[in-house]
Amino acid sequence: MPVSLAISLDDILDAARVIAPAAFCTPLIENDVLNARCGRRVLIKFEGAQRTGSFKFRGAYNRLARLDGAARVAGVVAWSSGNHAQGVAAAARLLGMPATIVMPADAPAIKLANTRALGAEILTYDRHSESREEIATALAQSRGATLVPSFDDPFIIAGQGTAGLEILEQAKAIGAEVGQVLVCCGGGGLTAGIATAIKGQSITTAIHTVEPAGFDDTARSLISGRREQVSPDARSICDALLAPSPGALTFPINQALVSGGLVVTDDQVRDAIRFAFTTLKLVVEPGGAVALAAMLPGLAPQGEGASVVVISGSNVDPDLYAAIIGGIG
Amino acid sequence: MPVSLAISLDDILDAARVIAPAAFCTPLIENDVLNARCGRRVLIKFEGAQRTGSFKFRGAYNRLARLDGAARVAGVVAWSSGNHAQGVAAAARLLGMPATIVMPADAPAIKLANTRALGAEILTYDRHSESREEIATALAQSRGATLVPSFDDPFIIAGQGTAGLEILEQAKAIGAEVGQVLVCCGGGGLTAGIATAIKGQSITTAIHTVEPAGFDDTARSLISGRREQVSPDARSICDALLAPSPGALTFPINQALVSGGLVVTDDQVRDAIRFAFTTLKLVVEPGGAVALAAMLPGLAPQGEGASVVVISGSNVDPDLYAAIIGGIG
Repeated sequence: MPVSLAISLDDILDAARVIAPAAFCTPLIENDVLNARCGRRVLIKFEGAQRTGSFKFRGAYNRLARLDGAARVAGVVAWSSGNHAQGVAAAARLLGMPATIVMPADAPAIKLANTRALGAEILTYDRHSESREEIATALAQSRGATLVPSFDDPFIIAGQGTAGLEILEQAKAIGAEVGQVLVCCGGGGLTAGIATAIKGQSITTAIHTVEPAGFDDTARSLISGRREQVSPDARSICDALLAPSPGALTFPINQALVSGGLVVTDDQVRDAIRFAFTTLKLVVEPGGAVALAAMLPGLAPQGEGASVVVISGSNVDPDLYAAIIGGIG
Repeated sequence: MPVSLAISLDDILDAARVIAPAAFCTPLIENDVLNARCGRRVLIKFEGAQRTGSFKFRGAYNRLARLDGAARVAGVVAWSSGNHAQGVAAAARLLGMPATIVMPADAPAIKLANTRALGAEILTYDRHSESREEIATALAQSRGATLVPSFDDPFIIAGQGTAGLEILEQAKAIGAEVGQVLVCCGGGGLTAGIATAIKGQSITTAIHTVEPAGFDDTARSLISGRREQVSPDARSICDALLAPSPGALTFPINQALVSGGLVVTDDQVRDAIRFAFTTLKLVVEPGGAVALAAMLPGLAPQGEGASVVVISGSNVDPDLYAAIIGGIG
């Protein structure tokens, strides 16, 4: 029996029209040293160049733009370690609505500062003892505000999928067939969106998720067939990818469309950040580097066509970045 | 009496055909925070994404590709603080010819290492006591090799100009009219190429050079009408822009086509590098950051149309970069 999935290619085409006035088309970049090192043609989709420095603005704007007048006045509430926070804050500002974001007290300083600079109200919580869902849900209810999930929402997923539309168009423009796409995966919203956009137009293109070790819930779920949980003891430098399990909406999509899940260590992530600094000349945050971290040591299957590596975000504190590129992080 | 200039738009169109199989089309990137800060639409032409991490590959490949069989066997000699070195080394390797590069002993380690990794032989010299021109010229003569100037050569200038063709095409694709272009300027080859490409198609677009304080020979020359010299006591962190005077071929072009010369301090360059890290998510070397360094504090004249800022290169040592983004460099 076919599963009913939360979104279709048409939803992503619709999202592309909605976000076009506000979002940027991010570059698809090729590098000869990367190609030589990987023994294949690699194309980097650089979402660090998206508004707010990650792909998250795409979904946030697509979601918030759907709210009607009364809902806009009441505003929105979200929880996020920082990239969804900035995406929601930026979209809310552009659409003229108040935003409150529940963020971990230990979120990267750059993410807290940027979210605040975008005009959002910030509530911090302790990641290890408090529930962000409960805090945000109670807040939204008390204010009559709309809760904006970070991945498990059809408009969010469709918005993230616009990156997939761009990948196919940009690859075509340089004469590349896309054989596989490696996507950084937390809750699976970006993967589900990109997979829907790409499989809907290019059924033979393989989609792979990439997760940090310890947060490989999607990789394990793809094998077990049910939504696995992250251990509460797991730790990673990839602050953007710490979602505790695949989403109720994202997982069925990814189960249907994703070929498999790759897993990288924090040391492989640091290597990827250094490579991006030295060779690609792109700033990448830890969570945004996992797909590159899988490509560099050859973790992705070989196959026909170009390999697209999504760099999903670039919001990293200068101290951590300096330590990593200096080889001491 | 009209001056005869070293290259024309046709030479650049020809260069574009020659380098197309080897060079990348680098991205033109827009950022909302940059637009808001500058009070105008700004487009970043990111040459850090070019092969070897700077625009220099464009001219080097266009020059070396013109050599015939015997000249290819004898090989090429160049002098450079590092970006032209890498451009020549990469082009020579692709075209199957030996390359020897005369480089300052205190060139950035990343530039020395990358040039060596590209298969070139490196001779180092002391910047303050020895003449790189004399060393390289003697070497080329003794080997029958071709000397490849870093800017004062028609094929080099035409190759660099291909970046200007891309700027106009890419701006048009996003519906932007290019009102002005700010170009990082050392010997003036990139400026002369871009100015020829752009003025040949869009006569109302203003071209401005940007130089580091103390190395403002082009700005002064544009005023005095003759090729001014840099003081031997001048120092700057912009290692890529330390040419002692405008070129014999580049200066007449720039005199005819450039509206004026802007000058930035090393502190403004550091601010621009930090802004590119924090907001643009692009790695930029000091010499590659001068045009952005002029745009951020509003040194460029206001006018109609978008302002294009060329980031010319991104080869910076991790220690220096870490110090700058940490605010201690």
